[in-house]
Amino acid sequence: MTAPAALIGSWVEEIDTPALLLDLNIMEQNIVRMATAFRGLTAKLRPHAKTHKTPIIAHKHLAAGAIGITCAKLGEAEIMVEGGIRDILLANQIVGTRKISRLVSLARHADLIVAVDDGANVQDLSQAAQAAGVSLRVLVEVDVGMRRCGVVPGEPALSLAQQVEKAPGLKFAGLMGYEGHLVFVPSLEERVHRVHTDLQLLIDTVSFLESRGLPVGIVSAGGTGTALITGRLPRVTEIQAGSYVFMDGRYKTIEGVDCECALTLLTTVVSRPRPDRVIIDAGMKTLTHEFGLPRFKGRDDLELLGLSEEHGTVKLNDPSVALTPGSTLEIVPSHGDTTLNIHDFYYGIRRGRVEAIWPIAARGKSR
Amino acid sequence: MTAPAALIGSWVEEIDTPALLLDLNIMEQNIVRMATAFRGLTAKLRPHAKTHKTPIIAHKHLAAGAIGITCAKLGEAEIMVEGGIRDILLANQIVGTRKISRLVSLARHADLIVAVDDGANVQDLSQAAQAAGVSLRVLVEVDVGMRRCGVVPGEPALSLAQQVEKAPGLKFAGLMGYEGHLVFVPSLEERVHRVHTDLQLLIDTVSFLESRGLPVGIVSAGGTGTALITGRLPRVTEIQAGSYVFMDGRYKTIEGVDCECALTLLTTVVSRPRPDRVIIDAGMKTLTHEFGLPRFKGRDDLELLGLSEEHGTVKLNDPSVALTPGSTLEIVPSHGDTTLNIHDFYYGIRRGRVEAIWPIAARGKSR
Repeated sequence: MTAPAALIGSWVEEIDTPALLLDLNIMEQNIVRMATAFRGLTAKLRPHAKTHKTPIIAHKHLAAGAIGITCAKLGEAEIMVEGGIRDILLANQIVGTRKISRLVSLARHADLIVAVDDGANVQDLSQAAQAAGVSLRVLVEVDVGMRRCGVVPGEPALSLAQQVEKAPGLKFAGLMGYEGHLVFVPSLEERVHRVHTDLQLLIDTVSFLESRGLPVGIVSAGGTGTALITGRLPRVTEIQAGSYVFMDGRYKTIEGVDCECALTLLTTVVSRPRPDRVIIDAGMKTLTHEFGLPRFKGRDDLELLGLSEEHGTVKLNDPSVALTPGSTLEIVPSHGDTTLNIHDFYYGIRRGRVEAIWPIAARGKSR
Repeated sequence: MTAPAALIGSWVEEIDTPALLLDLNIMEQNIVRMATAFRGLTAKLRPHAKTHKTPIIAHKHLAAGAIGITCAKLGEAEIMVEGGIRDILLANQIVGTRKISRLVSLARHADLIVAVDDGANVQDLSQAAQAAGVSLRVLVEVDVGMRRCGVVPGEPALSLAQQVEKAPGLKFAGLMGYEGHLVFVPSLEERVHRVHTDLQLLIDTVSFLESRGLPVGIVSAGGTGTALITGRLPRVTEIQAGSYVFMDGRYKTIEGVDCECALTLLTTVVSRPRPDRVIIDAGMKTLTHEFGLPRFKGRDDLELLGLSEEHGTVKLNDPSVALTPGSTLEIVPSHGDTTLNIHDFYYGIRRGRVEAIWPIAARGKSR
């Protein structure tokens, strides 16, 4: 769907649906709020771009003091580099001949950091970097309890770090340990406690490596639900949090997260088959629900009962409510990252008008 | 992601991942199998394009004898018309000034049929059709038990049909009643029984309208799980089934559905943190799981335990299996419609080679 630029300056009411709306005031406040919270902390922000997938928003993070950005996929990083971003952490393993060849090519146009957890992958990266005549900064990923990627803390991390340090074309830059299993712990007290416990594995590994004469420059961790906890830990130098810029509806269910939801989906009522039901034009092809069914913005009288592919079924607690085919509603996505991965652009809204239409340039760049 | 056409002729092993693969032999067999099953039936096939979103596949359906295609969204229909398709059922309500204006514009380039369930919407369609100087074929949607859109069978259907019949610019073309609540009933016997019971509401409404002097030309219903049941009902003239062309993994869990799964996701192992675990490069941003976690093609020894945004976690029942970072696997999506709505193109595969790369032209055309 190409962006109807002619709509810039129009009122929200003129936007066809379903459409992703981005409240620019709220987004800017979220960027400033997190940046302000990090002033004076030793840890700096390297916000994750997988949330917005849009170079202009990455630049807004940098303008607010971020030291760089984080990407999940090489394809996202390629888009961000095209958009003028230089300092990028690829917070995943880049595996296979084709991807590594893209990685070292991109490294001629950007300052990349890549995560590793496997010795053979380190060899592949080293050979490709040498062949391309580039130097890659490498973080050893440590599993701090998420049970996804990453080596075991301690000895295994040391031996892989030593391999990186010796590998031509690679520079051992530090450690990464993502506590993704803790970002949604509802109780703030419990979240603080568990972050301190699990990230200690990472911090102990930092000390262990340095006790063996291997200086650890970068220590990267942190998501939106833990940014201000992990960001205060000793030795942590960078936080990867990204969702806070839009703020998923799901984060409203946990304590101690201040940012507001900037992203909404504008949808139209297409049918009112019964007094207590309306059907909307937003289904699983415009809205994701793996984090639970989303809520309506400012409408506690409406409950989304379910999504089929192209429709949503909505319960009206008050059957006298005037909603007819053509009425519009706003939904707060429970998971913005995957919802915007279906859409081609955002409408940037301020004071009820379309101020900008931004292509979601890295949408679907899953390679 | 633009399609790397240079890969045409390459082996599957040369494709970067994650990537959607389409087994062309299986897809062609699925099209022929369903077309053959409909020979001799009074009901004809009007396959749904929301499954494939690709004009060339719509043309393959027509070449196999389909009388037209079905679309869910106006944006999909626009793409299909651009792709040379003329006879299109929009199996949903088209609501609002902007969309109705697009609908009557498109009607100058295609033979459209649109569903209605609301009198005010009928007025809007009539005024716009007159203003544009076009004639729209209209089906009255009847709720046969799915509890989504549609009017109540009987009297309400008659009065709306009479309104359509009288409305300038509109032609009452018949009735539509989609039994989406029955397509996944596992037991074939129960599915047959419930289809006969619920679709009788539609058939009785046909007789009722004709007893009031309103001839009912088109009677449209049917999904992949019910096509060969509903397609044999008296008075049903068209079947909207679409998923059979690729066949979702989920259909393999119900009785009496023959087509094979043509769509798979090629994914790469990026980490093997433990002997009994591998992490793959396919997560919620490349694969949907609202119909359940997908299975691996031809690998009963592997179990997908969960998806995060960019990763899948896989359990190895046999820890001695040789899967290392860089190994590739194929996943059968449990829900192809939403999975391909994330991707930009398919790799059409035959005999292990890339034969075609087809853009998913209507991807994200949710308006």
